[in-house]
Amino acid sequence: MKANYINDFEQWKQEFTYSAQVQVRFSETDMFGHVNNTVPITYFEFARIEYMKRLGLMQQWLKGDGDLFPVVADMQVDYTQQVYFDEVLDVYVKAASLGRSSVDLHYWVVNDKGETCFTGRGAMVQISKATGKGHPWTPEEKELFENKQLISSEN
Amino acid sequence: MKANYINDFEQWKQEFTYSAQVQVRFSETDMFGHVNNTVPITYFEFARIEYMKRLGLMQQWLKGDGDLFPVVADMQVDYTQQVYFDEVLDVYVKAASLGRSSVDLHYWVVNDKGETCFTGRGAMVQISKATGKGHPWTPEEKELFENKQLISSEN
Amino acid sequence: MKANYINDFEQWKQEFTYSAQVQVRFSETDMFGHVNNTVPITYFEFARIEYMKRLGLMQQWLKGDGDLFPVVADMQVDYTQQVYFDEVLDVYVKAASLGRSSVDLHYWVVNDKGETCFTGRGAMVQISKATGKGHPWTPEEKELFENKQLISSEN
Amino acid sequence: MKANYINDFEQWKQEFTYSAQVQVRFSETDMFGHVNNTVPITYFEFARIEYMKRLGLMQQWLKGDGDLFPVVADMQVDYTQQVYFDEVLDVYVKAASLGRSSVDLHYWVVNDKGETCFTGRGAMVQISKATGKGHPWTPEEKELFENKQLISSEN
Repeated sequence: MKANYINDFEQWKQEFTYSAQVQVRFSETDMFGHVNNTVPITYFEFARIEYMKRLGLMQQWLKGDGDLFPVVADMQVDYTQQVYFDEVLDVYVKAASLGRSSVDLHYWVVNDKGETCFTGRGAMVQISKATGKGHPWTPEEKELFENKQLISSEN
Repeated sequence: MKANYINDFEQWKQEFTYSAQVQVRFSETDMFGHVNNTVPITYFEFARIEYMKRLGLMQQWLKGDGDLFPVVADMQVDYTQQVYFDEVLDVYVKAASLGRSSVDLHYWVVNDKGETCFTGRGAMVQISKATGKGHPWTPEEKELFENKQLISSEN
Repeated sequence: MKANYINDFEQWKQEFTYSAQVQVRFSETDMFGHVNNTVPITYFEFARIEYMKRLGLMQQWLKGDGDLFPVVADMQVDYTQQVYFDEVLDVYVKAASLGRSSVDLHYWVVNDKGETCFTGRGAMVQISKATGKGHPWTPEEKELFENKQLISSEN
Repeated sequence: MKANYINDFEQWKQEFTYSAQVQVRFSETDMFGHVNNTVPITYFEFARIEYMKRLGLMQQWLKGDGDLFPVVADMQVDYTQQVYFDEVLDVYVKAASLGRSSVDLHYWVVNDKGETCFTGRGAMVQISKATGKGHPWTPEEKELFENKQLISSEN
């Protein structure tokens, strides 16, 4: 049952310090009565971008005249438990490992009973429009990803 | 029951000559078992753009360096009949009336039994990036919208 | 420019007492850089259901063995102003008029500068599964819809 | 770059015999100009269900009084190449391996130039409502998944 990107589940969970909250919309359910399998990836995107805003990277990528932008290289979603209309979910995000111009982000989604609903991971690469290739993180950016104390949740 | 943009329903239906086809996706249903009310507007968008491609306008609006682009000013959707997973629908589109830089498009969505599922309408305006205002249709473009013979469906 | 369901815009705005908040997701933008026209109707649904939860009607409709459920009869959306990624919007909802088994709901969407972004309306009908027809509101339910003091926003 | 579920890419591609077609909708793009990363998983769902309809399993799962239904256990998406508005994509699906009550499905998405745009995989489990547990495939169903000649594309 355990996803291939999780070694020790208890330790893995403790390494998260940042989360964003979502509330399941009616339009996100399907005729089987639960949240459709295509929806959690939109929660991951929402939480990832909130996290990147907290780091200050998103603002930089959204500048109209900027050279750098992020690309999602891959995504994994594990559906641990069915989720229903109106549930409020905490979507935790952490930088699990850093590459030269990429970051491997992990996701842990918990309902209000503390139950794990979804887990996931995915690599993101910072691309330069000029070169069409990965653009390396600065030392300051690496520090940001690694210093989890800087990125705790407000809520 | 009749929508305020339809005078004579039989005549209104006969004026459509163009349609695009959609198939209801599982992810478009909701926990009430039918197509969610937020979905038909995505079918309208799909059919509207296919129609605009047929007219040759969409290609022009999508040019990277072009000055003109379309904006949806308003939309109405009337849900005449519940629609379910896997139904195949013909989404008819027509230009019901033309303004200086706008067009009022009507929509008629029919299932494979010939039953009306949704009707709708919405105004679209051609905007100039340079002026920020509506940009008038050329006489050739008006002719395109009005000559329904030119815009029959292929399928 | 004024939508056909608004007589006096200042008065119309003052009659709203309930709102729910949404934050524009990245996946809700399109290649024209703004919120796609198919998205505001999902904000309306979210706010409508929050409002129906506040009234206590949604809980009743969601009971597994219940006879009654709501159906959206029509929807109108007016796109007053372009909306962009990450904006926080207040989606106001009110019951503008009541039928025997239906209600006409109006929507007013405001950004954090107090600017109107979208307005809208749509009728909703309470249907009985047993009869397949509209099921009349009780006097208590009518009172709920009409007594706006009962339905002010918490946030 | 190679996904962990692909050993020999050339051989992996040759094992697909079934595909369903999708056309990228405007509302599926985002402000970076390409298809948003949350969208390919909806293409996978569409193609998976078309494939399950071809096998005859979907019809069985959708029976109102049936005991069995499918649950997606996990999903992986690899974004090999950016995809843009209006592209027509062939979404190939195959059963890569069979468990007692589960199946590991692989996905390969190709544009009209024959370029790989996305690859993916995900396990699906057939659940019994009565027991809440996985319900084993019959020998006939196993045969269906394994006999690729039976499941070639029509289009």
